[in-house]
Amino acid sequence: MTATVITGIGELVTNAPGGRDLLGTVEDAALVIEGSTVAWTGPAAEAPPADEQVDAGGRAVLPGFVDSHSHLVFAGDRSAEFAARMAGTSYAAGGIRTTVAATRAATDEQLTSQVGRLVQEMRRQGTTTVEIKSGYGLTVHDEARSLAVARQFTEETTFLGAHVVPDGTTPEEYVALVTGPMLEACAPHARWVDAFCERGAFDADQARAVLVAGAAAGLRGRLHANQLGPGPGVRLAAELGLGAVDHCTYLTDDDVAALSDAGTIATLLPGVEFSTRQPYPDARRLIDAGVRVAIASDCNPGSCFTSSLPLCIALAVREMGMTPAEAVHAATYGGAQALDRDDVGALTVGKRADLLLLDAPSHVHLAYRPGVPLVRGVWVAGRPV
Amino acid sequence: MTATVITGIGELVTNAPGGRDLLGTVEDAALVIEGSTVAWTGPAAEAPPADEQVDAGGRAVLPGFVDSHSHLVFAGDRSAEFAARMAGTSYAAGGIRTTVAATRAATDEQLTSQVGRLVQEMRRQGTTTVEIKSGYGLTVHDEARSLAVARQFTEETTFLGAHVVPDGTTPEEYVALVTGPMLEACAPHARWVDAFCERGAFDADQARAVLVAGAAAGLRGRLHANQLGPGPGVRLAAELGLGAVDHCTYLTDDDVAALSDAGTIATLLPGVEFSTRQPYPDARRLIDAGVRVAIASDCNPGSCFTSSLPLCIALAVREMGMTPAEAVHAATYGGAQALDRDDVGALTVGKRADLLLLDAPSHVHLAYRPGVPLVRGVWVAGRPV
Repeated sequence: MTATVITGIGELVTNAPGGRDLLGTVEDAALVIEGSTVAWTGPAAEAPPADEQVDAGGRAVLPGFVDSHSHLVFAGDRSAEFAARMAGTSYAAGGIRTTVAATRAATDEQLTSQVGRLVQEMRRQGTTTVEIKSGYGLTVHDEARSLAVARQFTEETTFLGAHVVPDGTTPEEYVALVTGPMLEACAPHARWVDAFCERGAFDADQARAVLVAGAAAGLRGRLHANQLGPGPGVRLAAELGLGAVDHCTYLTDDDVAALSDAGTIATLLPGVEFSTRQPYPDARRLIDAGVRVAIASDCNPGSCFTSSLPLCIALAVREMGMTPAEAVHAATYGGAQALDRDDVGALTVGKRADLLLLDAPSHVHLAYRPGVPLVRGVWVAGRPV
Repeated sequence: MTATVITGIGELVTNAPGGRDLLGTVEDAALVIEGSTVAWTGPAAEAPPADEQVDAGGRAVLPGFVDSHSHLVFAGDRSAEFAARMAGTSYAAGGIRTTVAATRAATDEQLTSQVGRLVQEMRRQGTTTVEIKSGYGLTVHDEARSLAVARQFTEETTFLGAHVVPDGTTPEEYVALVTGPMLEACAPHARWVDAFCERGAFDADQARAVLVAGAAAGLRGRLHANQLGPGPGVRLAAELGLGAVDHCTYLTDDDVAALSDAGTIATLLPGVEFSTRQPYPDARRLIDAGVRVAIASDCNPGSCFTSSLPLCIALAVREMGMTPAEAVHAATYGGAQALDRDDVGALTVGKRADLLLLDAPSHVHLAYRPGVPLVRGVWVAGRPV
């Protein structure tokens, strides 16, 4: 097995728990990759010999970003809807339904090409693990094929049949479909089940039914909740002991306490608030209450078409009260926790060697230099990509 | 002279005045480059033959960005100061003075390497013309060598000796130096003269003295004004008939009227407000009052270390009430006007062929897809770079 040592690392972010700081940073560091995993980290002066050597030139090395929330399987363009929203003018088209119609009309090849393009775009920006949801098919056939497409790119696929109630059916009929034949067709392609628990989408009882049925089919649960207003979703997630609940913009003190008590991770998606001009979630309040936090992109054609975790980190610092270290931790270690993955999100011995080389001396520059494409190199499972 | 035709342009932004829209867009377009200039634009079906052909694959082509405000000649790192500011904690280091000390201590080679790296970084993000200021030297020698370094990369160099009053001198003594020996040493390397007219920096009389002396030495004037609070700078700029005045965050109705009446361009720098958590300037108010607007980066190590005009465009739409078209126009045509340049900022016949290929079908995606590195290719004076 070939060993590669990366030397000259100005700052190595390991995310080792119990390190000298939240990110477990090591300065003037080296990292050894053997095969697909991290074999050694420490001060460069103590690095063991290796077959190959890469010089980081004083730059920072971080774990690859873990993006635990995205909706990449779609077709169609909604840039005009975005422009209208920004101008404060009304727009006749039908939001998610526009994308559903375009997605149903697309071929498998078109969907696969689109997902591949976006996954590649994410990778260039440092994302090495991505979760991808269905949710723009809303028929048994289109949800199953959306997940089959997503599964070509990641193991972290999520069945989101309960995204919105499609035209021509009642909520009751649709939940019966989602928890019955649609779940049966989708479960083989999915690791997770999710529901959009929000006024205008699915209420708590409906969301619970979807998650319970998903669990019976072997899928782990996650939830969209409390994005557009206060609601029961976050408390439902805590009650069900879900690993993560996503959005968490509108939270009562009871919601925050429930997350803290249950150990459920709050996944914050600041690209959405940027792209919809909504108020940002208060990460500071959550962290100070002991809630674990992840940051993800929510990349989707309607409410947030960014794929950039560097931007989300900068927004978390600017708008959500996080320190740069907290934001980077949330986009790496936090994302891994939100996906219940212990093989990624950190650069300690035995972890998968998913890492990025930053064209900057420290992680702070991801917030200090917003918008600048700082990711200079990416390794996945020990190989440069 | 070799002619190259770019075909398959999904949307060509020409900025032709009097076009069907603000950006003078042409759909399904082609553009012909002869030598260093644009020789033809129009519908692809009507494109003349050329020696070489490039297929844009349905992507958008825009004029290269014109960044009319940057401070790239510096040394040192202020990321810790940034992190402290974001955390709301005090920071002992001395702001601009930290950079001045590091810049004075740097060799010419170090400064040149730093500017070259940042200009290259800007170019990868689509900036094809950049203005660069001095202002971290504050001695005759260090200001002159800062400008000599900048001049290696651009003709748009600006003498900003009047950036801040350095330690160990009085404002009166320093203005005498700036308008005397420092100006004499700097004028040969500069096209512009600038002053920071703000409480704590230079008052209106001092700024006027700097601009008047600069004009006598053949330099055109520009001004930093009304960034941190209301003040006389914007009205001074209008009174002196300057082409542009930069920041314009705190404006009275009289300030806005003065800009409109004088035809002075307001250069807005939203990366600063993003990076300092200050309120954004109100571009909508300016545009509605008939003021011409430019957007620039203000790339500098203290208040805004972004080099990304795509991010500034996204911020202008999210935070300043501009449409995507207005923001793109301001970062291209507006920047060119702010530099009194009629050879760049547009893609009409005879203009310099500075252009960028966007990995997206339209300019709207610069705001719709914030943070995503969408610039796929850049041409400067007709050549891919």
